[in-house]
Amino acid sequence: MLKAKVYVNLKNTVVDPQGLATKNALKSLNYEREIEEVRVGKLIDIRLDMSDRKKAEQMIDEMCKKLLSNPTIEDYSFTLEEVE
Amino acid sequence: MLKAKVYVNLKNTVVDPQGLATKNALKSLNYEREIEEVRVGKLIDIRLDMSDRKKAEQMIDEMCKKLLSNPTIEDYSFTLEEVE
Repeated sequence: MLKAKVYVNLKNTVVDPQGLATKNALKSLNYEREIEEVRVGKLIDIRLDMSDRKKAEQMIDEMCKKLLSNPTIEDYSFTLEEVE
Repeated sequence: MLKAKVYVNLKNTVVDPQGLATKNALKSLNYEREIEEVRVGKLIDIRLDMSDRKKAEQMIDEMCKKLLSNPTIEDYSFTLEEVE
């Protein structure tokens, strides 16, 4: 069994309204001096019933391109680990 | 300058509708045999204008409890790294 952790983030050049809202909320909680920038992305955990690591990497990459991310405005990366 | 990566996930006992929808969408893309489970969480990148690691850890922990996560239904974890 493999577990993939997929990270999907807006590209740096794309405005992130959710990040801005979170930044402003944190500022109103008295962290205004320390907070420089906040960006919010997605973390997708996928448990795969397969053991071939290479095949799994290829498959996750395909899933990211087809469904999990929008390549026009988002970047993605992922890690794979064995689990029980 | 420090960068915190905060991961917020629904607890395992909590139903994750976004994860289920993603799982079904992936199944309809012909990955039905391999996909076991999908769970969707948030990844929040925070750039902090400070260098004291210990203080930063404390602060991020506070932010998670107060604003970034809902401790009733969500778990959080974070990492801190130096950036330029």
